[in-house]
Amino acid sequence: MTPTAPARFALNQATTKYWPLPDLVAGCVDAGVTGVGLWREETAAYGLDKTAALVRDAGLAVTSLCRGGFFNTPDWYDENRRAIDEAATLGAPVLVLVSGGLPAGSRDVDAARAHVGEAIGALVPYARQAGVRLAIEPLHPMFCADRCVVASLGQALDLAAPHPAETVGVVVDTYHLWWDDQVWDQLARAGREERIACFQVADWVTPLPAGVLLGRGLPGDGCVDLRRFRAAVDAAGYRGPVEVEVFHADVWARPGRDVLNAALAGYLAHVA
Amino acid sequence: MTPTAPARFALNQATTKYWPLPDLVAGCVDAGVTGVGLWREETAAYGLDKTAALVRDAGLAVTSLCRGGFFNTPDWYDENRRAIDEAATLGAPVLVLVSGGLPAGSRDVDAARAHVGEAIGALVPYARQAGVRLAIEPLHPMFCADRCVVASLGQALDLAAPHPAETVGVVVDTYHLWWDDQVWDQLARAGREERIACFQVADWVTPLPAGVLLGRGLPGDGCVDLRRFRAAVDAAGYRGPVEVEVFHADVWARPGRDVLNAALAGYLAHVA
Repeated sequence: MTPTAPARFALNQATTKYWPLPDLVAGCVDAGVTGVGLWREETAAYGLDKTAALVRDAGLAVTSLCRGGFFNTPDWYDENRRAIDEAATLGAPVLVLVSGGLPAGSRDVDAARAHVGEAIGALVPYARQAGVRLAIEPLHPMFCADRCVVASLGQALDLAAPHPAETVGVVVDTYHLWWDDQVWDQLARAGREERIACFQVADWVTPLPAGVLLGRGLPGDGCVDLRRFRAAVDAAGYRGPVEVEVFHADVWARPGRDVLNAALAGYLAHVA
Repeated sequence: MTPTAPARFALNQATTKYWPLPDLVAGCVDAGVTGVGLWREETAAYGLDKTAALVRDAGLAVTSLCRGGFFNTPDWYDENRRAIDEAATLGAPVLVLVSGGLPAGSRDVDAARAHVGEAIGALVPYARQAGVRLAIEPLHPMFCADRCVVASLGQALDLAAPHPAETVGVVVDTYHLWWDDQVWDQLARAGREERIACFQVADWVTPLPAGVLLGRGLPGDGCVDLRRFRAAVDAAGYRGPVEVEVFHADVWARPGRDVLNAALAGYLAHVA
C-alpha cells in the first residue's frame, strides 16, 4: 500500500537517481506527491522540453533545479546562465548553487569565497529577468576544498545579503548543517531576511564512504534531529516544499518506488 | 642527508604509526628533533615506564599525550583519570581530549556537548593535582556524530571557559579548523584567554578515504594555509611546540625516517 503523501513533501530526483523520469513522475502521482526537485544532468539526458512537458502534464510542481555554481571553473558565467534558462523552462522557481571548491593549487579560501560573491552578483540581473531565484547552498565543511567553499548558513546569508531576497536566497539542507551550533540563530536570521528558498532533508549516517559524496541516509536512518530543523524553518516563516534529497549507493540500488515509500515513511515519522 | 630540525618542530607519533618507538626516538635524536607527541595505545604496548625512560634518556620532551575524552563511553571517568596518570608518568604537560560523538541512538547534540562540559569539570581537580593540562580538541565537523561533538574552536573555548586556563586549554589542529571563517577571531580569543595548549599541523587532501579518519596530508601536500595558522597562533602568544600529526595509510606505509624527513621539509617550506 502506498502512503498518501503529505502536502509539503517533495522528492528530489537525486534520491532515486536511476529511476527513469517517466516512472518517477508516475510513481509520484500514484503516491500523491505534488513536487519534485530535478537535476540538470538527468533532465538533459531525457530532454529539457520533454521533461518540462512530462512533469507539467502530470500536474507536478518542479520545486528546485540542481545545480548551478562551481564558480571556480573557467566557464562559470555562461554555464550558470544556461542553468538559469533551464530552470525557467522547467518552471523551477529556484536554482540551487553549489559554489565550487578551491581553484587548483590555491590555499586561499577567503579569496575563493569573495569570488563566489562576485560571481553571484554578476548573475543577479539575468536571474531576475528570468524569474529564477538563486539559492546559495552551504555544504558540509568536509566539501570545502573540492565542492563548495560556502561552509555554513551564516556565510551563505552573508553572501546573499547584498542582493534582493526575491532573487538570491539560501538552501537549508539538514545534512550539511546539523553539526553547527550557530545554525538555529542563523535560521532565525534567514527568516528575518526572508532568504529561505529551499529546504532539503537527509540524515547523517556513518561510516562515510570513500569520497564522502554518497554517504547520506533516508530520514530517520541517522542522527540528525530533522524535526527540530523543520520546526525552526517553519518558525522562520518558510512555507514551501520539503525535499527529501539523499545520495547513497545502497539507496540508489533499490527500486525507485520502494525508496519513495521509505522516504515518505521517514518523512512522516521524523520530519512532519 | 637529514635536515636539522627547527627548534619548535615536534613529531607526533601517529604520523609514523608503525615506526617502533626506539627507532622513532633514535630517528628524532639524529634529526635534531627535540619533542615527540605520544599516543596511549603505543606507549602501553611498549610499556609506560619503559617509554618514559626511553624518551627521557634520549633527551626528548614529550609534547602531548593523545588521548583522553570519549565522554560518551560508560567508563569515561576512570579511563580519563588513567590517561591523566599516564601523561604525568610520561612528563607530558598536555592530555589531548577527543570528546566523543553522540551516544548510540541519540539525536541530541546539544545534550552531548553539555555532557562534555560536565565531564571535563569533573576531571579538573584530578588533572590539576597531577599537573597535567587538559586540552579540548575541536575535530572537523565530519567527525561530529561518531568521534567528537566539539566541532569548532569557539565551542572548545566555551567549554574551557569555566575552568582555570592552566588546567584546561584547547588544541589547535589545522586539519580540523581550516574551513572555518571564524577561526581567526577565535584564535585571537584563545590568545587573550591563554588557552592554546597544543598546536598540531596537517594538510587537507582529497579525495577522503572511506571512514575519513586516515585522510590527512603531510604539510604542503594539501590546500591549507598552514603558515597563516602558525602566524596566528604566534600572534596569540603561543610559544610552544608545533606537532606534525598526519594519519594516512600511504604515509604509514613509508619508512619512519623518510616520513620524518618529509615532515621536516614540509614544515620548513609551509609552516615555519
